[in-house]
Amino acid sequence: MSLKVIFLGTAGSIPTPKRSLPAIAVVRKGELILFDCGEGVQRQMLKAGLGFNKKMKVFISHMHGDHVLGLPGLMQTMSLLHRSRKLELFGPSDLRDFVEITGEVLHSPPTFPLEITEVGDDGLVCEEKEYSVFSAPAEHLTPSFSYSLVEKQRYGKFHPDKAEALGIPEGVLWSRLQQGSTVKLQNGRVISPETVVGPLRLGRKIVYTGDTKHSVTLVELAKNADLLIHECTFDNEFEERANEDGHSTPKQAAITAAKANVKRLILTHISARYKTPELLLSQARKTFANVDVAEDFMEIQLPLPRVKQRVPEA
Amino acid sequence: MSLKVIFLGTAGSIPTPKRSLPAIAVVRKGELILFDCGEGVQRQMLKAGLGFNKKMKVFISHMHGDHVLGLPGLMQTMSLLHRSRKLELFGPSDLRDFVEITGEVLHSPPTFPLEITEVGDDGLVCEEKEYSVFSAPAEHLTPSFSYSLVEKQRYGKFHPDKAEALGIPEGVLWSRLQQGSTVKLQNGRVISPETVVGPLRLGRKIVYTGDTKHSVTLVELAKNADLLIHECTFDNEFEERANEDGHSTPKQAAITAAKANVKRLILTHISARYKTPELLLSQARKTFANVDVAEDFMEIQLPLPRVKQRVPEA
Repeated sequence: MSLKVIFLGTAGSIPTPKRSLPAIAVVRKGELILFDCGEGVQRQMLKAGLGFNKKMKVFISHMHGDHVLGLPGLMQTMSLLHRSRKLELFGPSDLRDFVEITGEVLHSPPTFPLEITEVGDDGLVCEEKEYSVFSAPAEHLTPSFSYSLVEKQRYGKFHPDKAEALGIPEGVLWSRLQQGSTVKLQNGRVISPETVVGPLRLGRKIVYTGDTKHSVTLVELAKNADLLIHECTFDNEFEERANEDGHSTPKQAAITAAKANVKRLILTHISARYKTPELLLSQARKTFANVDVAEDFMEIQLPLPRVKQRVPEA
Repeated sequence: MSLKVIFLGTAGSIPTPKRSLPAIAVVRKGELILFDCGEGVQRQMLKAGLGFNKKMKVFISHMHGDHVLGLPGLMQTMSLLHRSRKLELFGPSDLRDFVEITGEVLHSPPTFPLEITEVGDDGLVCEEKEYSVFSAPAEHLTPSFSYSLVEKQRYGKFHPDKAEALGIPEGVLWSRLQQGSTVKLQNGRVISPETVVGPLRLGRKIVYTGDTKHSVTLVELAKNADLLIHECTFDNEFEERANEDGHSTPKQAAITAAKANVKRLILTHISARYKTPELLLSQARKTFANVDVAEDFMEIQLPLPRVKQRVPEA
């Protein structure tokens, strides 16, 4: 199943001609999941060919303008296009005020149901059938969160042709086999699940840091992620300033990636002072090899889920 | 003196890949005057090479999101860049609430003095030494204004070389001559002003409609303008819908331009349905020849002020 990340905005704090303000889209099975919603996001979505009527969730890392000022315009455009599908927003406690007050002052109540959930300090933020989103507190100047999107592990692929060849009747036995149980047929034959079911399909995991300084909590959240999208506002020379301002350097992001044993690291939230990615990249690569610097409209297609042998039946 | 208009955003209501949301910059003698401030304006300003620390005024036509949602981000960026110069905002009564409330929720008080002026239904909005800005009520779905920027007429150019050659002592006599008075020297010689002073320099006039349907008031405001920037959301086929929604067609904009005897007409606030300008242009040209459709980053340098002979001394 396709799981794609599209970087809609990769600037830090102030946009540049090449970088729009922070917004990262995850497209999964026709659903659009946005992490942060910086000014200009609706136009970036248009340019990326993303529609405004998908099933959609928005996770806001913190209430600084560069991370949230694209939301009222996005919602107004959805209303102008007569969206009727629910929009789900998740973020710090001030998110509700921001959305409601801007809607009031601009006289633009949404045409669609709006569900706003206040994110707590850590734990489960939202649970869908096939994935969950978790938060962890980030260390920034204002209440801030990092998020992980974790696909659930799925049963192995069931092979009906094999099951039929073995004379297993369709129905409850098929389900029990797919769920990993050994079953006994009426003729007494015992069928173990691996005979007709492929290995368990592991979920994939994407972590987005939002704005944060180096933190232990983040290593926990990012553990074994397939993709860690880490803010990187300053280069290593500015480590002290990064710590003061609640931001990170390439070295710090790479250390987190290594400690968390992630597969791939992407640096984003790039200060306007860095016209090219080389400096940040070279500093990060000293600690973690599989790293890139995000660009606007960069797309990352995550590899298909890995598989593992089923846990033996209890 | 240079007077330049830069179209920063020319879309109507919803942006497109080619058109950002409404914002028009007028650059005059190092001062930046913005008419409307749609989402994305700060990035458009960067792309147009405009700085964030100029003397600056912003005139908001009305409080619909597409015309004002660029303001909080612009102000945040100014603060991040440590602007200390005053910023002057002019607009409908809700503008103050919008600016103050978004600033509070996003914890981003400006680093610079902010002066917000509520615009009344018509008349003088602001007066500077060399120009004034006037408003007139526009006919839209919410309280809305059109604006005219009118340069004041200036005395003719004084030629000190000629004055010295005629033995006119520098000082009060020079001033009186430039102001159009005839003077008498101590030797009894009478000097008429045209001997040492060029013709009066007329001011230029730019009018921006904001969102509006066809209106008589607008013809008055636009009288003899050098440049009329007129919204044109729909083509002539949609005249009825334009009237209902408080918008205009090419024909209506052209009629206003002709009746007001303006020199040049630019159509802006173009709906996403028009991928090319031809239809709108051809419809407008039937009534008014000197018309163009705006594009993002289009620049118009207004011709130097015209001159006229001084009014004879009273």
